[in-house]
Amino acid sequence: MTNENLIFYNIVSAELKLVEKKLQEAVENAPETIREPFSHAIKGSGKKLRPTLSILTSQIANECPDSAILVGTGVEMLHLATLIHDDVVDEAGTRRGQVTVSSIWGPEIAVLVGDYLFASAATYVCETGNLSVIRRFVAKTIMELATGELTERMDLYNCFQTRDQYFLRVYNKTASLFAAAAECGALLSLASESQIDCIRDFGINIGMAFQIIDDILDFEADSLDIGKPVGNDLSQGILTLPSILALERCGQDNPIAKLCKSKNKDKYLYEALNCIKDLQVIPEAYEIARSHIKKAKKLLYLIDDSPVRSALMSLTDYITERDR
Amino acid sequence: MTNENLIFYNIVSAELKLVEKKLQEAVENAPETIREPFSHAIKGSGKKLRPTLSILTSQIANECPDSAILVGTGVEMLHLATLIHDDVVDEAGTRRGQVTVSSIWGPEIAVLVGDYLFASAATYVCETGNLSVIRRFVAKTIMELATGELTERMDLYNCFQTRDQYFLRVYNKTASLFAAAAECGALLSLASESQIDCIRDFGINIGMAFQIIDDILDFEADSLDIGKPVGNDLSQGILTLPSILALERCGQDNPIAKLCKSKNKDKYLYEALNCIKDLQVIPEAYEIARSHIKKAKKLLYLIDDSPVRSALMSLTDYITERDR
Repeated sequence: MTNENLIFYNIVSAELKLVEKKLQEAVENAPETIREPFSHAIKGSGKKLRPTLSILTSQIANECPDSAILVGTGVEMLHLATLIHDDVVDEAGTRRGQVTVSSIWGPEIAVLVGDYLFASAATYVCETGNLSVIRRFVAKTIMELATGELTERMDLYNCFQTRDQYFLRVYNKTASLFAAAAECGALLSLASESQIDCIRDFGINIGMAFQIIDDILDFEADSLDIGKPVGNDLSQGILTLPSILALERCGQDNPIAKLCKSKNKDKYLYEALNCIKDLQVIPEAYEIARSHIKKAKKLLYLIDDSPVRSALMSLTDYITERDR
Repeated sequence: MTNENLIFYNIVSAELKLVEKKLQEAVENAPETIREPFSHAIKGSGKKLRPTLSILTSQIANECPDSAILVGTGVEMLHLATLIHDDVVDEAGTRRGQVTVSSIWGPEIAVLVGDYLFASAATYVCETGNLSVIRRFVAKTIMELATGELTERMDLYNCFQTRDQYFLRVYNKTASLFAAAAECGALLSLASESQIDCIRDFGINIGMAFQIIDDILDFEADSLDIGKPVGNDLSQGILTLPSILALERCGQDNPIAKLCKSKNKDKYLYEALNCIKDLQVIPEAYEIARSHIKKAKKLLYLIDDSPVRSALMSLTDYITERDR
């Protein structure tokens, strides 16, 4: 990945630094007892794609308002909060190579640190004083995120789930927050209603693509790169698009279905991974991700050309090209 | 407890029914996978003191607005969400005689159901469309609740904690939500600034009294009555007012300090409970609770006499008189 692909970072670098500063301030303002796990959690804040999205869309119609920094901070903090609770639920020891809050301080503290981050996220967004933004973020998004996580948990080892169930889960779990980040930025930019609709749908589509690609990479990644073994989702009972496509093709006479139904899950994991490779479902899954990218770009063409639009295009390309 | 003491329920019974209806609707509107644990959690919604408070204070200056039902529902739902996460953190099997969500569906689902209820609570409050109410509730209160729970966890078995640390924890953990319930009601009633200040401080004081009495009852309660054994808090390492007062009197040469420092906690529990009895700290703790009740009543006398004020007086008395 060369720097030319990352022009979308260049035009928001000053604002992203302000988001980082706010995240640091939040740690310093937290009660003493929570600072260490909070600070550790913030280290997991990597590429900041979601705040980047908010800050870019906040310039769609007018200049970036100060409140975009608040939304960017809130969006990133909500993302971190969900990761912390996810790691409790999944009993994950590491995430992207970093030890989780749950495994250092225990699941009890991790639940409460996550709650504190949820609250902080809501607080930053409330500071904007913009009722539409607050409603979009606090009411709709947090609810969808919780729903996404819950359905993922409830659908563990369910080999009868359809791709529509999967898409809904991906929407709730990931695309909803991308959509909120994008829509809240556009709202703060005082964009027109049609621009806001466009930007929201753009956010949904890149969010869908992002998660589908993430799920594909789980079958391809080198464990050293993303800090988890290949087939990690499947081994935990999470059926993502490649598994569901394989089930669609072979029905229940399939090592994935056997893995779901058997008590001895490990016995079928290797076979299931091979089956996914042999059936060539990975290219099909990529095709679905790319269709969302295409839709996202088509939506961007509906808004006026500008450096911000180019940056959003570049961010969209980055989502398909990222290697982890 | 006779019915005369409960006039505060009579004048809000119609509104409380609407809150109950909203809670039921929330269950029905939840994703199918979550309905059962959600419905189970709502059964734990007992006396509805917090929504009662919101509905009463929403009539301080003007008639009860429809939005008071939304705040009442949000307040109760936030209360339930914190109970669910508390039970995960404390690994509690039962609460007030009812099996916890965590022990039926597992801590993983309980974390996510709690998150969903947090989100639902925020959603109801956002529906009021009142920015002051949303800020008070979503930003300030959820943050304080999370802080209270975290400091309780961090202060486990800390025999050097002061009564001021305890009071701050009680404020965050309990009084904050009573204050929010009261203040949001007054805000919706379009009360004057001085009335709102008065009602908020009233909420803080009854919240403080409520929790201090709850903590005292833990040393007195019959386990059949409240569904947990006597000295349950202390046996879990939670030092409440009676323990802290006992430590103040005896310094570190005390079975409570020994319990905190020893690996064999059970060995000192019986002695510690006897020490609390012998030192007569329970009456002193009650005196502190009563001082908050007195302050609360004094604050109520600052607002005009009305059936609502009488009901708030009656609710205040109920808090000291309740037997569990």
